Amino acid sequence: MKFRNFKMVDYVVYGRGSFDQLDEILAPHRKEGQPMVFLVDHFFEGKPLVARIPLRGNDKVIFADVTYEPKTTQVDGLAQSLKDEFGQVSGVIGIGGGSTMDLAKAVSLMMTNPGSSADYQGWDLVKMPGVYKAGIPTLSGTGAEVSRTTVLTGPTRKLGMNSDFTPFDQIVLDPELTTNAPANQRFYTGMDCYIHCIESLQGTYLNEFSKSYGEKALELCQYIFLEKDTWDEECDDKLMMASYAGGMSIAYSQVGVAHAVSYGLSYLLGTKHGVGNCIVMNHLEDYYPQGVAEFKRMVEKGGFDIPQGITKGLTDEQFDKMIDVSLGMKPLWENALGKDWEQIMTREKLRALYEKL
Amino acid sequence: MKFRNFKMVDYVVYGRGSFDQLDEILAPHRKEGQPMVFLVDHFFEGKPLVARIPLRGNDKVIFADVTYEPKTTQVDGLAQSLKDEFGQVSGVIGIGGGSTMDLAKAVSLMMTNPGSSADYQGWDLVKMPGVYKAGIPTLSGTGAEVSRTTVLTGPTRKLGMNSDFTPFDQIVLDPELTTNAPANQRFYTGMDCYIHCIESLQGTYLNEFSKSYGEKALELCQYIFLEKDTWDEECDDKLMMASYAGGMSIAYSQVGVAHAVSYGLSYLLGTKHGVGNCIVMNHLEDYYPQGVAEFKRMVEKGGFDIPQGITKGLTDEQFDKMIDVSLGMKPLWENALGKDWEQIMTREKLRALYEKL
Repeated sequence: MKFRNFKMVDYVVYGRGSFDQLDEILAPHRKEGQPMVFLVDHFFEGKPLVARIPLRGNDKVIFADVTYEPKTTQVDGLAQSLKDEFGQVSGVIGIGGGSTMDLAKAVSLMMTNPGSSADYQGWDLVKMPGVYKAGIPTLSGTGAEVSRTTVLTGPTRKLGMNSDFTPFDQIVLDPELTTNAPANQRFYTGMDCYIHCIESLQGTYLNEFSKSYGEKALELCQYIFLEKDTWDEECDDKLMMASYAGGMSIAYSQVGVAHAVSYGLSYLLGTKHGVGNCIVMNHLEDYYPQGVAEFKRMVEKGGFDIPQGITKGLTDEQFDKMIDVSLGMKPLWENALGKDWEQIMTREKLRALYEKL
Repeated sequence: MKFRNFKMVDYVVYGRGSFDQLDEILAPHRKEGQPMVFLVDHFFEGKPLVARIPLRGNDKVIFADVTYEPKTTQVDGLAQSLKDEFGQVSGVIGIGGGSTMDLAKAVSLMMTNPGSSADYQGWDLVKMPGVYKAGIPTLSGTGAEVSRTTVLTGPTRKLGMNSDFTPFDQIVLDPELTTNAPANQRFYTGMDCYIHCIESLQGTYLNEFSKSYGEKALELCQYIFLEKDTWDEECDDKLMMASYAGGMSIAYSQVGVAHAVSYGLSYLLGTKHGVGNCIVMNHLEDYYPQGVAEFKRMVEKGGFDIPQGITKGLTDEQFDKMIDVSLGMKPLWENALGKDWEQIMTREKLRALYEKL
């Protein structure tokens, strides 16, 4: 199809305290003897949120270690252990940031699709709907709550399971859940959204649908990170909507240079997505001059220090690996630089960029 | 539930020329021997669009007379005639403005739900999913493409079949289809969107989700109707997104005074929704001072004359009927005026307002 037929999330609930509706929301999706499995960011272990999870019958809470971003082996292991323990589950509920939500989407799909999640890294390779899945963000910015992907690091690449079966059946957008996020993480994840917007709005793929979402997300980020002087409820409310709108803007656009380069860093060095994007964005004046200048003002106002020199001392082989991973993200480069991107972004030029980081 | 769990449209495709993907989009939803039924605004009879409808097998095109807005009797008649002719259909595809799309939604629901559509006027009364249904707007502004209602005039009231089964399975947003809309109709339908936004953004129900959609729709309307001097492709592109965003903003908000009063006009006099809203908005300085001033600038810039004096000579009984219909729209009044709306909007005050129109 010339224009993507975009699969939307089925149900969305937005509101402070809407997490308390989860029991009622899940009820119609419970199947006899099969548990709801709550994949929860390990950050919440021992925190009050856990006691609010509406457990019934043989429901299970699994704390997911998202120190590193999800791997295909982790997804496969989780799905297998759930199959061993329960046969099948009623659903998988991801409660956390982008990594946790992506993990939940992937595990849901691997409860019904054979083989390894690595087999489905790519576009439209998933063949079967997963089990019921819901996403509940506790950090705003990645847009993972509405995306049709689930970014995974596999044996040979970092790439998502992009498919119409990937989006959540339900998302619960409760800004209260983001209140106690560490300021550092909140900032980097928020910048992920901001960078999304810049890449999407300046990309060649853009149309009016994505533009209207991208502009709204950008406007919200500018308000939160440039106009507001203290972080308050309004910031949490608006950043949650910025994340949602930023994610929706990807329907007819793509991310660009920052993401493409950042994927190489994550693959080789395990750099977290949000941090990696910022490290790269910091040096992209040539591609997004206005966006980078504004980004730097946001970093300064927030009082953050973007890491520098993280590629110092890497070997040629290591640089080559990052370059391979990055240049493999063809749609991102094409969106950023147009059809002739391969003439523009040579291996040498990309190497020089990686050396700056 | 405290916060509505909002059912989204399942699939959306946006793009100039995306109508040509319809055959491919419908293919997986066709059932052996059961036709796709295309309900098409009678405006298109004999026009080139009809030849582009991807007919297969026993598919049927029905031109819908939408001179008046859909009635429950019309819905019941259409559904019955389809049952008589085919037993069951694969789907109902509405191609037209808000009336045609609402008709398609209602007929889809009445292919599977027993009784009359009048039985389901209200909130969450529909018990069964309808047959597959798709909406293809050829006029932008009503937001009917994403709403969970289908406004019908019944034996005792004008009220929608509001339910989670009401939203379309698919919408095709192709701004090319709106190119040849009559300027007058385009304007009144666009103003429906603008008035939505004002009512929603100033309402008491608003939250950040609806606010971000409402603000975007408003900004697009302001650009189209105040900044642009000639109507061009950009206007069609943006007004289609304004309509979508305006419709989405209703998720956690409501329309207000203009709609509540306009419903009375439509019920008694058959005034078209868009025109009725404008007739009322023209006199709502007390409720939406800024919005009404801006609305008047849009009317002036567009060179339109909003009808006046349409209630002249009505009997007391007729005024009473309009007042009854209007005051029946409780959520609209509550959104506009707060919990104590009944103290504020008395029958006398509403009568005085109707007399001005």
